[in-house]
Amino acid sequence: MKKSALQIAREAYQPKLPLGLRGNVSVKEGEPTQSVADQEEIKKLFPNTYGLPLVEFVPSEEKKDYAPINVGVILSGGQAPGGHNVICGIFDMLKKQNPESKLYGFLMGPGGLVDHDYKELTADIIDEYRNTGGFDLIGSGRTKLELEGQFEKGLEILKQLNITALVIIGGDDSNTNACVLAEYYAAKNAGVQVIGCPKTIDGDLKNEQIETSFGFDTACKTYAEVIGNIQRDANSARKYWHFIKLMGRSASHIALECALQCQPNVCIVSEEVEAKEQTLDEIVEYIAGVVAKRAAAGNNFGTILIPEGLIEFVPAIKKLIAELNDLLAEHAAEVDGLDVADIREWLCKNLTPANAATFKSLPEGVGNQLALERDPHGNVQVSLIETEKLLSEMVGKKLAEWKKEGKYVGKFAPLHHFFGYEGRCAAPSNYDADYCYALGSSAAQLIANGKTGYMAIVKNTTAPAENWVAGGVPITMMLNMERRSGAMKPVIKKALVRLDGAPFKTFAAQREEWAENTCFIYPGPIQYFGPSEVCDRTTVTLALEQNA
Amino acid sequence: MKKSALQIAREAYQPKLPLGLRGNVSVKEGEPTQSVADQEEIKKLFPNTYGLPLVEFVPSEEKKDYAPINVGVILSGGQAPGGHNVICGIFDMLKKQNPESKLYGFLMGPGGLVDHDYKELTADIIDEYRNTGGFDLIGSGRTKLELEGQFEKGLEILKQLNITALVIIGGDDSNTNACVLAEYYAAKNAGVQVIGCPKTIDGDLKNEQIETSFGFDTACKTYAEVIGNIQRDANSARKYWHFIKLMGRSASHIALECALQCQPNVCIVSEEVEAKEQTLDEIVEYIAGVVAKRAAAGNNFGTILIPEGLIEFVPAIKKLIAELNDLLAEHAAEVDGLDVADIREWLCKNLTPANAATFKSLPEGVGNQLALERDPHGNVQVSLIETEKLLSEMVGKKLAEWKKEGKYVGKFAPLHHFFGYEGRCAAPSNYDADYCYALGSSAAQLIANGKTGYMAIVKNTTAPAENWVAGGVPITMMLNMERRSGAMKPVIKKALVRLDGAPFKTFAAQREEWAENTCFIYPGPIQYFGPSEVCDRTTVTLALEQNA
Repeated sequence: MKKSALQIAREAYQPKLPLGLRGNVSVKEGEPTQSVADQEEIKKLFPNTYGLPLVEFVPSEEKKDYAPINVGVILSGGQAPGGHNVICGIFDMLKKQNPESKLYGFLMGPGGLVDHDYKELTADIIDEYRNTGGFDLIGSGRTKLELEGQFEKGLEILKQLNITALVIIGGDDSNTNACVLAEYYAAKNAGVQVIGCPKTIDGDLKNEQIETSFGFDTACKTYAEVIGNIQRDANSARKYWHFIKLMGRSASHIALECALQCQPNVCIVSEEVEAKEQTLDEIVEYIAGVVAKRAAAGNNFGTILIPEGLIEFVPAIKKLIAELNDLLAEHAAEVDGLDVADIREWLCKNLTPANAATFKSLPEGVGNQLALERDPHGNVQVSLIETEKLLSEMVGKKLAEWKKEGKYVGKFAPLHHFFGYEGRCAAPSNYDADYCYALGSSAAQLIANGKTGYMAIVKNTTAPAENWVAGGVPITMMLNMERRSGAMKPVIKKALVRLDGAPFKTFAAQREEWAENTCFIYPGPIQYFGPSEVCDRTTVTLALEQNA
Repeated sequence: MKKSALQIAREAYQPKLPLGLRGNVSVKEGEPTQSVADQEEIKKLFPNTYGLPLVEFVPSEEKKDYAPINVGVILSGGQAPGGHNVICGIFDMLKKQNPESKLYGFLMGPGGLVDHDYKELTADIIDEYRNTGGFDLIGSGRTKLELEGQFEKGLEILKQLNITALVIIGGDDSNTNACVLAEYYAAKNAGVQVIGCPKTIDGDLKNEQIETSFGFDTACKTYAEVIGNIQRDANSARKYWHFIKLMGRSASHIALECALQCQPNVCIVSEEVEAKEQTLDEIVEYIAGVVAKRAAAGNNFGTILIPEGLIEFVPAIKKLIAELNDLLAEHAAEVDGLDVADIREWLCKNLTPANAATFKSLPEGVGNQLALERDPHGNVQVSLIETEKLLSEMVGKKLAEWKKEGKYVGKFAPLHHFFGYEGRCAAPSNYDADYCYALGSSAAQLIANGKTGYMAIVKNTTAPAENWVAGGVPITMMLNMERRSGAMKPVIKKALVRLDGAPFKTFAAQREEWAENTCFIYPGPIQYFGPSEVCDRTTVTLALEQNA
């Protein structure tokens, strides 16, 4: 592996640990906990892992002896910067506890556990991946660990390798499944502990106990860098409107954070669209209004941030998609083989009037995408819809109307961008490098202290790293019951953008000024070696949430 | 203007100057020069600015007195990182020579000179823009200074502001025009010197005298950062082929430099396509071949770099476009009003057989784009063609055929990216910050020494900055005669990628290995504060060219 100059220089970085994890560690346990809702049902589902206390790691005078153990680790779901450092943190803490301990990585996600695909992670391998982006050390995958058959297949290989603890690094679903697995192994006294770690660039795995999921910081800073560069270009050329879609399956945290970092002219927040029951046309009208107002001041340029999940938060479109899914599944035989125009006609006749009206209001290409391009389960593939182009096309039409009516004078030249893959595997910022290393170290400490069904956590991360507080939270504490695929299931509640939260309120208080004037900020690329105020700042979201 | 932490920290950076420009400066003049070709014609066109000597600035014991002067500066054409530092370099050197001297910026490009749109650049303004990206200090534009009327309008405002020297910061065309303007003012003894500065992220303004144009370094490093991140993602997810188009109107320097920095699986070089007279199908076959070979080894992922200008370098398509332009212009009345299908039919009938065959071989969408979407001059808008999607679509079809024939087993899931605006306004790397500041300082020295029709240059830039050699080159030295819009004109020869040059040869020697194996390098973001081997490295292109 040929390395870049930065990779080589960055290898030497020693992530900063909280004081509680630096020397001898002892455990401070809190009171028994309760799940956030549906306590009776959750307790019934998780008799062995319910009600456990919060734990916190604190410095200790006493040096403990640790027996050697074998631990397995899995990366689950989409890449997020810092995953390698979680693994390095586990490895280093395990080896510090006992140099005879071993760490195994299961390959290409949870599937590696089921398929017995693994490798031992030795010091020479680990050292190649310190402070690097990506999940290529052991790969990741989207297999869901949900079935007893999978749990048993996993147990076979765990027994064979004498692995007594498993760390699953993933998002809300993966951590929910980690909890189910922990309960399953506990119930049958399998002798395997299961620990989760909160990962996702989307930022939607956070709550009272979890300040932020790792990777969000680095991914947002990478997107903010290129958005800032585009804004400087817009402000120099003064002739383009840049429509910038940002990854994030459903929550708008990434778009909002990038808006707080860059101060674009417009940022759409899906959660607000849903709460205000806005139509697509209202969103288009809002954007067109900003464009027209800036044009009146001679500014035919700007930037617009769009969260990837927007389309599903527009109530009218959400309803349309739901009816399309049912209708097309029910009448598959009837529709199959019709050409595009005929399917459109058929839909206009058979959709309920409100949904038919929404369908007709969409640009033809997008309507066709909704009607025709379906995944193997027959569902609309929302992620394929180029929302940034959809909106700019509709804004262009609206402006053309306004021009005829004399309400708009200006030039509208849109350009389109979509950022996602650009940030998921960036080399972790100092924040994510430290945070992930501390999470991994905490996971190893939870294991050493016999915990299962816990997620590793680190709190107080807006303070200097030495004052961070590491520990663990029982996953059951974060569960509630939700309907999934027709049945009630215990899940970790997804954290969407809160309209009463400090990040959104800070944005909402300034957006009018940002829309009208040019208030762009240019964050520049992530710096690893410079002054602390440049290199060690957290996301604006986290700073606002912690100081609110 | 609210600034990011990085901007604030970066303001303090003092660009490094060559020894020759640090203290007292004297001028070393060379022998009279000749144009690179067509000497007689160039000499005749530029009687007052032809044959001037190369000049070099060297340290001097003697402290000179400089009378105060007023200087104008113009940014011309597309943004490139470091433009602001050129202006800062001019400003600082002017003020050092005489604090009474003044610098005026003409606004939004050469048009500002013609329209008398300007502002004085004072220390408090300049200080806000040190080491920043973008051209927003005075804006840029694409108006070409070519007509006597423009020269005279410009002269009016220059006289009015008592400006005796003008610096034009631009690409090859802008510098050619700077030379024409210099000659014009010299011929009529207007008392205005004109100096050029070599700018363009495309990297195609370079020759014996100009090592590199500014902005190329920063732009390529920014693209390489996101390409590297995408590669790490590809190597982690192991299921996507990323087709990445890179800006660069015609030359492939950017794509080649990014390939040298990142080692992707494929990089297409337009100049090679042209030299080998490759067809689109041959390019597609090459890419599909790499995909298939990697699939056979279980690697259904990879990265492919595509230069923006590719399509015009495919000889068959170049010919098709030329005939389409003529044919559609000639028969505008006949074609006007026909629907798409009829225009396609008409074209298939009326194009020469070879071009008709090429037309039919293109995916329908691209064919329609060529046939229907024309600019106000009736020309095909090549830059609108999504070459990255065109290629991936054709590769997908080829692979489907091969699958039927049993020649390919694998999954092909393409994703698309286009990077351009992300890098044009990035904050300049140390290299570009220093290089631009030195160029600006040189420009001011050329002015102080009475030169006109010169371009500021800085050489030996792979050495530490103190050993860089600053000076000036008569622009006439770089001119030759070329046919433009039907007439022979003096122009600076565009530097395309040389297939016998060290950068291409280095790439060609390794590409087979990069194609088959996964040799990705992850350069990471530009660093401004870290170790010198990270922060001060040049492009690979420059290093290879200088050491060849």
